[in-house]
Amino acid sequence: MDKIEILDVKSQIIEDNDAAAAEVRDKLKKSNVFLVNLMASPGAGKTTFLKRTIEAIRDEYRVGVMEADVDCDVDARTISETGAKVIQLHTGGSCHMDAYMTEQGIDKLGMEDVDVVFLENVGNLVCPAEFDVGAAKKVMILSVPEGDDKPLKYPLMFSVSDLLLINKIDTMPVFDFNMDALREHVKELNPDMQIMPVSALNGDGFDAWISWLKEEIKNWRENR
Amino acid sequence: MDKIEILDVKSQIIEDNDAAAAEVRDKLKKSNVFLVNLMASPGAGKTTFLKRTIEAIRDEYRVGVMEADVDCDVDARTISETGAKVIQLHTGGSCHMDAYMTEQGIDKLGMEDVDVVFLENVGNLVCPAEFDVGAAKKVMILSVPEGDDKPLKYPLMFSVSDLLLINKIDTMPVFDFNMDALREHVKELNPDMQIMPVSALNGDGFDAWISWLKEEIKNWRENR
Repeated sequence: MDKIEILDVKSQIIEDNDAAAAEVRDKLKKSNVFLVNLMASPGAGKTTFLKRTIEAIRDEYRVGVMEADVDCDVDARTISETGAKVIQLHTGGSCHMDAYMTEQGIDKLGMEDVDVVFLENVGNLVCPAEFDVGAAKKVMILSVPEGDDKPLKYPLMFSVSDLLLINKIDTMPVFDFNMDALREHVKELNPDMQIMPVSALNGDGFDAWISWLKEEIKNWRENR
Repeated sequence: MDKIEILDVKSQIIEDNDAAAAEVRDKLKKSNVFLVNLMASPGAGKTTFLKRTIEAIRDEYRVGVMEADVDCDVDARTISETGAKVIQLHTGGSCHMDAYMTEQGIDKLGMEDVDVVFLENVGNLVCPAEFDVGAAKKVMILSVPEGDDKPLKYPLMFSVSDLLLINKIDTMPVFDFNMDALREHVKELNPDMQIMPVSALNGDGFDAWISWLKEEIKNWRENR
């Protein structure tokens, strides 16, 4: 009997996705568009965070946003108030964005009149971490109400991200959130990752985040 | 040429899972064990909620807990302080529990010395909603910091659940959470679902939740 070929479906999916992500990355470089993959739990404050971010950078960059959700368009409507170019992506029940969906998104959004694009991924700390979408940077938001133990439970997300924003720091007095413990947990997974406390509600910490973003855009443009 | 058979892999996975869930349900009925599938976002307070629940019912029922996580065992350690019988399940990267994993869990936990078992599902509002694990009841927790718009974004979870608990109501003064808007959104998806505001931190609303739970256990025992 011939040798039976075994296909590890999950590995194959990830491998195919990585190849598609490389294509997306290449396309974005050619168009000079800096893509940020923004990942977080449901309700961590991604949309409010994005709104304030766009307001802070829109004089300098033309901003595009891809809002990925299983359903509805409330986030896209909120973001459109900033004047940013925005499209809503429905994932068809999928709990994460992959590189193929991202490519469809950027083709639909159009790359000719944007400099920076944010992909607001589906609210989920598990699968979005596994799927490279071809972004220049992966930015993760953890919110104070979620607790400081999340790196223990969702290690991959903390391992693959380039920057960790701790949002809703204005609610620190109400929650038992130990920032030192959080830093210790993260350090074990991703020793070099910067951690920035922010409040999308009142703007605390945004200067540091916006500086980081501008610096990363500058470096990326020089090296692309 | 012969007709090519097409397999819709996702549908087949769900179909197979449903068959496995029916087996789990049958097994639990024979053992007279009431299984609750507890679902929520990361950081919604599932573990603190479970701890207080166990303390409220342990004189009347022998409680078992299956803690499902991608990694770590912090929740299982926390729950074990209550004296409940507890096991930690690692999902091997999966963002949800399915019926096969649940069956492995109950076999390992053992059904002979428990009356009520809680499965604390992976923190995720998407895929756990799709996978029936064979539980008698599906209970969902949404926490106030996550926001009142979550039914719009994760409709399936709100549609399939039997009870919705709004946790962390002690933080209502700090967040812009509109309970009436939440009720309206939920009503469109699941008109008959009860919504109970609770605080796992201070115990507010627990009388109603514990009454609901006891009534459901009683009904299930009478009808199984």
